[in-house]
Amino acid sequence: MTITNLRLAQFRNFYDQSFDFSKGVNIIIGPNAVGKTSLLEAIYLMCTGSTFRAEENLVQEGQKWARIDINYSDNKTRTLKITGDNKLFEEEKQSAKRPKRPVILFEPNELFLFYQNPNARREYVDTRVASAKRGYSNTVTQYKRALAHRNKLLKTRRGATETMFVWDLKLAELGQQIATERKQYVSQLNKHINPIYQKISNHKEEVSVEYVSSLSVDSSYTTNLLKKLQDNLHKDFETGYTNFGPHRDDIAFKIFGKGVKTIASRGEIRTIMLAMKKIEADQLENPVILLDDVFSELDSLRRQRVVGLFGANQVFITTTEADLVIKKLSAPHSTIVF
Amino acid sequence: MTITNLRLAQFRNFYDQSFDFSKGVNIIIGPNAVGKTSLLEAIYLMCTGSTFRAEENLVQEGQKWARIDINYSDNKTRTLKITGDNKLFEEEKQSAKRPKRPVILFEPNELFLFYQNPNARREYVDTRVASAKRGYSNTVTQYKRALAHRNKLLKTRRGATETMFVWDLKLAELGQQIATERKQYVSQLNKHINPIYQKISNHKEEVSVEYVSSLSVDSSYTTNLLKKLQDNLHKDFETGYTNFGPHRDDIAFKIFGKGVKTIASRGEIRTIMLAMKKIEADQLENPVILLDDVFSELDSLRRQRVVGLFGANQVFITTTEADLVIKKLSAPHSTIVF
Repeated sequence: MTITNLRLAQFRNFYDQSFDFSKGVNIIIGPNAVGKTSLLEAIYLMCTGSTFRAEENLVQEGQKWARIDINYSDNKTRTLKITGDNKLFEEEKQSAKRPKRPVILFEPNELFLFYQNPNARREYVDTRVASAKRGYSNTVTQYKRALAHRNKLLKTRRGATETMFVWDLKLAELGQQIATERKQYVSQLNKHINPIYQKISNHKEEVSVEYVSSLSVDSSYTTNLLKKLQDNLHKDFETGYTNFGPHRDDIAFKIFGKGVKTIASRGEIRTIMLAMKKIEADQLENPVILLDDVFSELDSLRRQRVVGLFGANQVFITTTEADLVIKKLSAPHSTIVF
Repeated sequence: MTITNLRLAQFRNFYDQSFDFSKGVNIIIGPNAVGKTSLLEAIYLMCTGSTFRAEENLVQEGQKWARIDINYSDNKTRTLKITGDNKLFEEEKQSAKRPKRPVILFEPNELFLFYQNPNARREYVDTRVASAKRGYSNTVTQYKRALAHRNKLLKTRRGATETMFVWDLKLAELGQQIATERKQYVSQLNKHINPIYQKISNHKEEVSVEYVSSLSVDSSYTTNLLKKLQDNLHKDFETGYTNFGPHRDDIAFKIFGKGVKTIASRGEIRTIMLAMKKIEADQLENPVILLDDVFSELDSLRRQRVVGLFGANQVFITTTEADLVIKKLSAPHSTIVF
């Protein structure tokens, strides 16, 4: 089932506009600030029920509501109404309700992942694990709460060492679950990333992903973390935070064994992210692929290969210009020009 | 004086390669990961004595040293040698020493500025102020030290309230200098940014920049901050850090009065950054302009206007593809194709 038509009314900068789509690759071409990303956002909203951008101004300035209609290839329609004040989304017709659709989004801000501090990378992996593993998200929440309690004790210095031990134990137990799941996910990522990367780059780079922890992630993790926490209590009191645990781990992306941040060009880093998206896509059933400004920083050969990579799905790509590559596309495709 | 030729030996991925440049616009075209950014980096190194990237691998893998030769339009040459082990840079000939050249660099990672936390924006402004105002950098260092001392007191709870007062006073006095200088810089930025932005976009956007502080930045700032610090001592003890002062301020970039992060497209945000670069360039004498992958995310009209904006200087632009725009350039220019 694919999206055949999208109609946007009073949504972002669209007053009332309708778009027909191909079941293959859809290239959305236009200058800056005409609403290319908003078009992807509307599809994303319909698939997931939430936006990937700041919600402000979903409803066009001066209007009270916005409306999105999507037609699918099975001739069914889905309608979403967005109210201006509280930004709630309402299904208009009960009959139009259908399950959310799997969607893969690439948007350039995600590339921050490789430059930001480890927290962003931990969150990325946590989100991926949580979407596949029931209960994981709850484990992470519990861990964060226990950590906050322990850090509060470290700062206020109220409460005896016995109170601290309760939190240490909780952190060690939850920590093992988190580190184990993350390591497993990262090892899966590592297994698949290289061949996909090489397919896009057409070179023999060696890309790898590694889970970096100060403790070895195995069956003795709980015991080891508990010991670490107790041995380093003095240091923790001095710094005012907990120095060991999965909240200090990192995910290292490497090319030829060296950190991407120091060795990779921006085009290479973008290629790594796209390989990760492809891995995500392969785990879902018939996902919609949204690629916002994906061509930037890629040379024309990589552009062609990216389209090829996702070509079996329905793909939406925004770009600032009609590129020569587009004319050479072998996949069924249509172009929308603003 | 312009750069007429650059020779790179064993530098990054160049074994031995020489490039001739035009005194106008130089477009460096090539696919991903061939060394386009490294070429700009070499020029930047010669101009400033330091790199804008992680230093690792400045010397080509397997080699012991790298060498950069630059020829200027006055027929003088400057040579830089880079050793592999300690990465020190040495001038080869005493006679070749010449003052560093002013340089303006745009590189896409800088766009994080608009998405990151306020710290990045404060640092951006601090760097700009420091380059124009003698002693400012020292003021900032002193402030940071005093803040670290005070925060340490808050965490360890050692030392009486009298000790705290010494740091409060220091913070209040230095804080006034910092907030005043920053506000003045931001107000200058605000004055110039809009006309330049509009020149690139060709639209009537209203772009503005604002210094955001919890205290009004005027002659009573020291007194007010001192009072704030003392009134909120209890809160500071609870949180374990200092809740008031210029280290908590922000610089707000807006379009039509709304935060760029929520309202602007990536092309618009890029345009704001380029306008800021133009303002920097106007404050320097004949700077070299390095624009790394500047065309990404910009439509072809904005591309043309960006080139026009900096066209009076010697400009180096990297891009992944020969763009139609380039053929229409009226400025004197040359293209280097990898």
